[in-house]
Amino acid sequence: MANITVLGAGAWGTTFGQVLADAGNDVMMWAIEPEIVDAIENRHVNPVRLPSVKELPATMHATGDRQEAVGHADVVVVAIAAQFARQALEQFRGLLPADVLVASLMKGIEKDTGKRMDQVVTEALDLPSDRFLAISGPNLSKQVAAREPAATVVGCTDIDNARLMAKLCTTKYFKAFITSDVIGLELAGSLKNVVALAVGMSHGAGFGENTAAMIETRGLREISEVGTAAGALPETFYGLAGVGDLIATCGSPLSRNYTFGYNLGKGMSVEEATKVSNGVAEGVATAGAVVALGEQYHVDTPLAKAVAHLVQGGITFQQMIAEMFPDEVTME
Amino acid sequence: MANITVLGAGAWGTTFGQVLADAGNDVMMWAIEPEIVDAIENRHVNPVRLPSVKELPATMHATGDRQEAVGHADVVVVAIAAQFARQALEQFRGLLPADVLVASLMKGIEKDTGKRMDQVVTEALDLPSDRFLAISGPNLSKQVAAREPAATVVGCTDIDNARLMAKLCTTKYFKAFITSDVIGLELAGSLKNVVALAVGMSHGAGFGENTAAMIETRGLREISEVGTAAGALPETFYGLAGVGDLIATCGSPLSRNYTFGYNLGKGMSVEEATKVSNGVAEGVATAGAVVALGEQYHVDTPLAKAVAHLVQGGITFQQMIAEMFPDEVTME
Repeated sequence: MANITVLGAGAWGTTFGQVLADAGNDVMMWAIEPEIVDAIENRHVNPVRLPSVKELPATMHATGDRQEAVGHADVVVVAIAAQFARQALEQFRGLLPADVLVASLMKGIEKDTGKRMDQVVTEALDLPSDRFLAISGPNLSKQVAAREPAATVVGCTDIDNARLMAKLCTTKYFKAFITSDVIGLELAGSLKNVVALAVGMSHGAGFGENTAAMIETRGLREISEVGTAAGALPETFYGLAGVGDLIATCGSPLSRNYTFGYNLGKGMSVEEATKVSNGVAEGVATAGAVVALGEQYHVDTPLAKAVAHLVQGGITFQQMIAEMFPDEVTME
Repeated sequence: MANITVLGAGAWGTTFGQVLADAGNDVMMWAIEPEIVDAIENRHVNPVRLPSVKELPATMHATGDRQEAVGHADVVVVAIAAQFARQALEQFRGLLPADVLVASLMKGIEKDTGKRMDQVVTEALDLPSDRFLAISGPNLSKQVAAREPAATVVGCTDIDNARLMAKLCTTKYFKAFITSDVIGLELAGSLKNVVALAVGMSHGAGFGENTAAMIETRGLREISEVGTAAGALPETFYGLAGVGDLIATCGSPLSRNYTFGYNLGKGMSVEEATKVSNGVAEGVATAGAVVALGEQYHVDTPLAKAVAHLVQGGITFQQMIAEMFPDEVTME
């Protein structure tokens, strides 16, 4: 197998490190917090970020030293919060071995630039795009950490690199499929947040599975059309990183976007929901991003527009539903 | 609007009758049971089949007389259990007005013949196929009956007839989209049962959203590939009648297939689960049907095969998951 370094020891980074260790790799976690490094390296736990795991594999190590972390890595996995990725990665520039593969577990769009994570990572590390991999799927950390069956998608413009990475993270409980559609993985992972927000609103407003399923299905079609116009393949949105991730997100009360929407649907103002969640959910900004992409590519985005309208305080959830659908009958 | 007759006063037939009445139509329910006819006609309730509704619209009537039921209908809606449809409809043959449209709310494949409901209805009534409509979507009866927001798809090979029917069933809370893909609506509605069964198994075995999302996504791709080979459009499987219906079904403990699978996942034998459910769930036969369609059209069907294998008592849920996925890495 391989020497793999994971940058960032949050819940998903640590969990993916365990998957890689279970698959037989030597895993090095890098974290900026000395107490997390110490806990993983010396006590085989990460009690702050992943308290549900009582003993991490013995083949997982940790360091706070950047050179030690990546100097001998075959693969570097980036699991840093999306908005801090560029700044954090620039400090690794020049430290990475020449032929290293870099995989991103991050979902989101960089707010200042509107760029996808594949763009941020390759720019920050000066990495050729055919050595960048996106990894995305219905992978709630806690359940993967408990070794429940799950699947993901590994994307790379060089499909042989995707296949190599997929093999490195395959275990009895974790399956990896491959694709060359990196843009689709990136866009599905971030744009789905606006749909999760709307589904949360629906449940918060007291509606059941019919309304949720309608919003998920129509929302998926909308972000798929926007994404396809922006260069993605539509099948990626209907695969594990699209519909799969959306199903897992909307089925879990743990999701930040879902919970934020739920509180709005119950009647909280954006200010109140922001206070309860310690910050605005990503999906609020995503609504604006989807509307902007729709305008750029001339794709209609009624769901994102209606969500944006509600978040701006203009309309109720019932009015949002009405805005989502045209009065006249249309082809599905 | 129109004179519309609904054949069958079960939960969904009665609920759809209420939608049609809310949309401004004159609605006549036909039922074979005199006590149900009496309850709807004289007391505006259907306490046996739809107890959650305390007062049906005054424009809904009921009769047990076939000629009275359909003699002046512009549209006849069929909401009879799939396996009894042919026999029940043959008794209406010759009674229908010449230009009538016939819409089916039924989901399933006729066991004796392997035929879809569009085939059964047009054969039983000697109806031209361009006057047959399929109506399918994420429409759990109780939630539509409570007038929660929901959407459906109306399909007809003559898109003008689909548009007409969609207008007749559109209300403030119920939206209808249209398609010409009748075969897709029929196949998505019936083949999804095998996926719902597998998701139920997964939850019954104690697994969470990741495993469910993986099964739903891979299962959808599988039935979409089989359905496309059989003449359906793939987008129908990724629309309201496919992924939408599956999300609603798997999110609700009310679904028969889901519950049957859940009990199998908990470790019950097929015999025990059958006893608890008062019969075998449709998805068990559907697994065999998907495998057969796959063989006929040379499409791989690992999920349906694994479900069939488990139902036959050969393997555990964990082994089923292993059988669903090939050992080698594949394109998504």
